Amino acid sequence: MSENARGDGGGAGRTLSVDRDRLRSDVERNAEFGAVEPPEANAHGRTVLTGTEANRRARDSLVERLEDAGLSVSVDAVGNVLGTWTPESANPDAAPVVAGSHLDSVPEGGIFDGPLGVYAALEAVRTLQEADGEPARPVAVVSFTEEEGTRFGGGLLGSGVATGHRTVEDALALTDDEGTTLEEALESIGYRGESRLEPSDWDSFLELHVEQDTRLEERAVPVGVVTTITGILHADARFVGETDHAGTTGMADRTDALAAASEFVLELERAGREFAGEDGTAVATVGKSHVRPNATNVVPGEVELGVDGRDVEAETMDRLLERARKCLDSLEADRGVETDLEIELEVAPAPMTDRCREALSTGADAAGVESVSLHSGAAHDTMYVSRVTDAGMLFVPSEDGLSHTPFEWTDWGDCATGARVLAEAMTRLADD
Amino acid sequence: MSENARGDGGGAGRTLSVDRDRLRSDVERNAEFGAVEPPEANAHGRTVLTGTEANRRARDSLVERLEDAGLSVSVDAVGNVLGTWTPESANPDAAPVVAGSHLDSVPEGGIFDGPLGVYAALEAVRTLQEADGEPARPVAVVSFTEEEGTRFGGGLLGSGVATGHRTVEDALALTDDEGTTLEEALESIGYRGESRLEPSDWDSFLELHVEQDTRLEERAVPVGVVTTITGILHADARFVGETDHAGTTGMADRTDALAAASEFVLELERAGREFAGEDGTAVATVGKSHVRPNATNVVPGEVELGVDGRDVEAETMDRLLERARKCLDSLEADRGVETDLEIELEVAPAPMTDRCREALSTGADAAGVESVSLHSGAAHDTMYVSRVTDAGMLFVPSEDGLSHTPFEWTDWGDCATGARVLAEAMTRLADD
Repeated sequence: MSENARGDGGGAGRTLSVDRDRLRSDVERNAEFGAVEPPEANAHGRTVLTGTEANRRARDSLVERLEDAGLSVSVDAVGNVLGTWTPESANPDAAPVVAGSHLDSVPEGGIFDGPLGVYAALEAVRTLQEADGEPARPVAVVSFTEEEGTRFGGGLLGSGVATGHRTVEDALALTDDEGTTLEEALESIGYRGESRLEPSDWDSFLELHVEQDTRLEERAVPVGVVTTITGILHADARFVGETDHAGTTGMADRTDALAAASEFVLELERAGREFAGEDGTAVATVGKSHVRPNATNVVPGEVELGVDGRDVEAETMDRLLERARKCLDSLEADRGVETDLEIELEVAPAPMTDRCREALSTGADAAGVESVSLHSGAAHDTMYVSRVTDAGMLFVPSEDGLSHTPFEWTDWGDCATGARVLAEAMTRLADD
Repeated sequence: MSENARGDGGGAGRTLSVDRDRLRSDVERNAEFGAVEPPEANAHGRTVLTGTEANRRARDSLVERLEDAGLSVSVDAVGNVLGTWTPESANPDAAPVVAGSHLDSVPEGGIFDGPLGVYAALEAVRTLQEADGEPARPVAVVSFTEEEGTRFGGGLLGSGVATGHRTVEDALALTDDEGTTLEEALESIGYRGESRLEPSDWDSFLELHVEQDTRLEERAVPVGVVTTITGILHADARFVGETDHAGTTGMADRTDALAAASEFVLELERAGREFAGEDGTAVATVGKSHVRPNATNVVPGEVELGVDGRDVEAETMDRLLERARKCLDSLEADRGVETDLEIELEVAPAPMTDRCREALSTGADAAGVESVSLHSGAAHDTMYVSRVTDAGMLFVPSEDGLSHTPFEWTDWGDCATGARVLAEAMTRLADD
């Protein structure tokens, strides 16, 4: 049964209805790009790193679909894609209402994280086009580059550049582990465009995203309106010891970088547990590790760890950083390693704009859909956009809260319900 | 001043003199293959993994030099290279006296570890050719494949196959991290030969190697005659947790494979320190680590560690393994990870043959060179060869004991002195 057959809208005035099958087919088509061999049944994984062949195919497919819907497409200097629909009813110079998300993934990530927000935005625009409304503003769909930060580091790259957090030049000069620059990677797939997106010129921005947590699922509520996005910190911790022969260097004579790094991993975990306490919003993770030279019979001379720390309170993040630095100092003193901590990304907690939260809640009511307010434990491009214009976020449920894994899943009905609430909110903002 | 100009031999009968410059030029030429950008002055690193272009060039260069010296060259099924000189004085069917080592390296290893033993053997043969002796046996130079075990795992691969520890078929089917088999790698560089070396048919085997420790340097003695080679254990420890989003998965809800693996790294270190106790021969190392999916913002779902444990006492190695298994059991119980320990290599301590130790000591006396007896903390191909025929090892000093690093260094005078003692020992064995 498609969503538009339901007719369960109970709000005031007209009710918008989205095409569930059209949305599902868009997301499923996108899932084919970079698809990974499923480890078991019911797994749907993809690896779509910025500037790869899989990313080119995903982008080409999006551009084709935007153009099919009559949107005018532009690509900016860091590969952000914008498709704009200017209805006859709208002043073409009015600030647009924009919605979207990202198409890149973590290695072996899920098929909804990012793409659902992009294609739900497109489905919302198509729904507005098919409805009898007369939007006063242009309405647009955006896909930001490298949200995950997996290939070029840092995360929220495209939205960071668009909102002036990072310059175009700095971003294009970023390199991956092989030394390829973002500029080279984008050029190789034909997505190194011109100028840059200006979200500060947008009327407002909305992002639909999977929750990546179990709160909606546990309460059996189909949509969540985000109050605040947690602050996020990414740092590289580096440990330099002494590369040596594992057989002839006595235990007392070694400066083992991996043993030092292992103490750090456990201390970060302890700090995260401690700060999370009862309410559980703080998290600390070491997700990435590179060991050099990385051979069984060699005492590791160097280790680099990728650290992730988050909380809705800025103060907790400061304390986490302090704990990390203190641990590195101890390791220098106790183990004789040299250490270094480089902050790659530091974003303060971001409260959403009242006007956008209101549009989303009212939109849910209009669609006859129950909604709750909740915070976001994950970072999103909306963090940056909310600093330069009005912004809001809408969550749909994630099965078992799983994401960044091929087992990430959101029911197709929930996807369509989210797109319908998004369309309701967009039409409200565009009518302002 | 070249070694042969010294004339400091004080032993009985004739004295052999090697050409220091010729040996140095051989080792320096070999150092160019796979040479790594030096991190600072006085660093001389190389990365020569089995079956790579650097390995092909190193092998081609050796074969050319063996043939230039009139040796008859053969390559066996796993790429072991043998160059044989049959003097007119020798019975061509007599069991040969063989010396050699290996040409492969760890990633960013040194230029002496392996190649010095191969080229010192060649220099010894050239010296015998130029001397007025009449060897009763053929004399040969060998280079074993994949001693380090860096690309295809396990270590001592070529000597392991030659001595029947592993079949040719099993060895050729080994794969690297990309899934390439040893057979494919050897074929691609033209070193997948026929049949296999038979060290059990050799009269005796000698290996000259850098000490990779500071005992010779500290005593200012130029050569060491090895008594026993330490036992060695290589194992892969695997930790499977749950891949998840680092921002939305609460600290209490995660099964972090890297945190579990970090506890294991530290427990292995503790056990190594404990077992080393006063005498210091036991060592335990985690040298290798692979994290999946290895992204900063993803809780690690899987970690694989490469473990190295050694001692001159077999019992200590059993106890180390027991500690590792006990630690994995605790981690399964406490953290909910699944674990697995797979033994990749297990070699018992190997005592050297009296006859070969005697030949080396007497050879040193004959050359007027002071020598000491010591054990080897590193594994060598001689470990396997000593199980099927008479075998001995000779060490030359390593500056600061460093090896498996670009800072590994042995004075050229010490290299030549070692080659001279090797030649003296070989002529004694070949005259038997």
